[in-house]
Amino acid sequence: MATLIPVDDPADPRLDDYRDLTTADRRPDRPGGRGLVIAEGVVVVRRLLASPYLVRSLLGVPRRLDELADDLAAIDVPAYAADADTMATAVGFHLNRGVLAVADRAAPVDAAALARTARSLAVLEGVNDHENLGSLFRNAAALGVDGVLLGPRCADPLYRRSVRVSMGHVLRVPFADLAGPWPGALDLLRDAGLRVAALTPAPDAVPLAGAGLGGRRVAVLLGAEGPGLTDEALAAADLRVRIPMATGVDSLNVATAGAVAFHAIGAVVS
Amino acid sequence: MATLIPVDDPADPRLDDYRDLTTADRRPDRPGGRGLVIAEGVVVVRRLLASPYLVRSLLGVPRRLDELADDLAAIDVPAYAADADTMATAVGFHLNRGVLAVADRAAPVDAAALARTARSLAVLEGVNDHENLGSLFRNAAALGVDGVLLGPRCADPLYRRSVRVSMGHVLRVPFADLAGPWPGALDLLRDAGLRVAALTPAPDAVPLAGAGLGGRRVAVLLGAEGPGLTDEALAAADLRVRIPMATGVDSLNVATAGAVAFHAIGAVVS
Repeated sequence: MATLIPVDDPADPRLDDYRDLTTADRRPDRPGGRGLVIAEGVVVVRRLLASPYLVRSLLGVPRRLDELADDLAAIDVPAYAADADTMATAVGFHLNRGVLAVADRAAPVDAAALARTARSLAVLEGVNDHENLGSLFRNAAALGVDGVLLGPRCADPLYRRSVRVSMGHVLRVPFADLAGPWPGALDLLRDAGLRVAALTPAPDAVPLAGAGLGGRRVAVLLGAEGPGLTDEALAAADLRVRIPMATGVDSLNVATAGAVAFHAIGAVVS
Repeated sequence: MATLIPVDDPADPRLDDYRDLTTADRRPDRPGGRGLVIAEGVVVVRRLLASPYLVRSLLGVPRRLDELADDLAAIDVPAYAADADTMATAVGFHLNRGVLAVADRAAPVDAAALARTARSLAVLEGVNDHENLGSLFRNAAALGVDGVLLGPRCADPLYRRSVRVSMGHVLRVPFADLAGPWPGALDLLRDAGLRVAALTPAPDAVPLAGAGLGGRRVAVLLGAEGPGLTDEALAAADLRVRIPMATGVDSLNVATAGAVAFHAIGAVVS
């Protein structure tokens, strides 16, 4: 089980993974970032502990670590216990929800392997907002989507803000970079037997409910809020579907549109 | 057309409606609050100008007021032009998107009248988070829901944060307080010929897609994220429907669940 280690010096080098998070993890995947996965709060830390990610340590106030006692029983990592001020000084902010955990990134998932086994996928182009990306993963997890493929210009799902907004579900839903030329890389999905349905507000697209996607193996192609999918991506899809919308309303948030589509394809069998 | 009035003194009493917004409008509907509707940014100000709300004035930097020139042509209100610093000093913060407008609240809508004419409604119980409420209005507007009824313990849709998150759609979708004893007040919906469908994750509820709600006049009853609907509200509904969800996932955000339901009832005819 995890070892509880009291720490009272915010400069303690054992807390270095947690130091000045706001600046350190601005882009964890970039040079200068530490490339670590940070979970915040009891719910998300619990999901991290249950995930395949290799946890390096926890840092929390005693009350929050207590709440995680059952989860920590099965795992052998240091759990640093500090008071709220020590924790805030090391981390760089107070709103840290009382407990953090840090993990190494996992080995990348192979997109082709994911596509072969998935019944449903979300495929993203240009979803570069960490909150939208986090929400999308939350919705994908809730509605039973088997994985997420990241096309060009997507944000990093393991960025701290995405992890938090996803409520930790980025740690649960497998994702992979869709490498290679775009949108040619979408062929990988067709080769895997998935139908590629692009979501667009275009009036000549097929209404989602009448597109006959329920019960089929489908990859839902989603673009960024605002610009939407590029013409190239739309042209490369097997079909274009739309969510019927009231006149005068621009669009739904991309994560919300995703949820409507994921429900419509019936990824979770009721 | 609107009169452009240069202002260079942040203490100018003509800017009093905009003064120290962060503290002044914390709860605009409460004593001490000014009870005004504040729109922020070009998109939302534009929606306010197009709404039935009586606009008192605008305050913006010249560039943003220019963007609104067409919208302002048809309306006779003072538009105070200030530089960004003057504006920030009066308002109390810099992140004001360069233009604000202020309006009086409108006379309350009658819930029974709204229910009689609506083809679809959202009915909320305990949705006390301003962001969720704003998102819900955005989704209701996009998906063609005709109105929102506010049951007990709901936040104020006209709070500044709700207005912003809704992208101004709280100004477009009619809403009313569902007064009277709860959940008995729901009888008003049935009397108006609407079917009351309560959204719940309960496993014995009917899957949304198979509930036969498409094309019918429906009121979708939604509870707060987390606790969900009270037992009393669930018992008072005509039927209980669920969005099939993957095991181990708590729930969708209430605005997202609403969007899935609004699409399923087909409020916008494709």
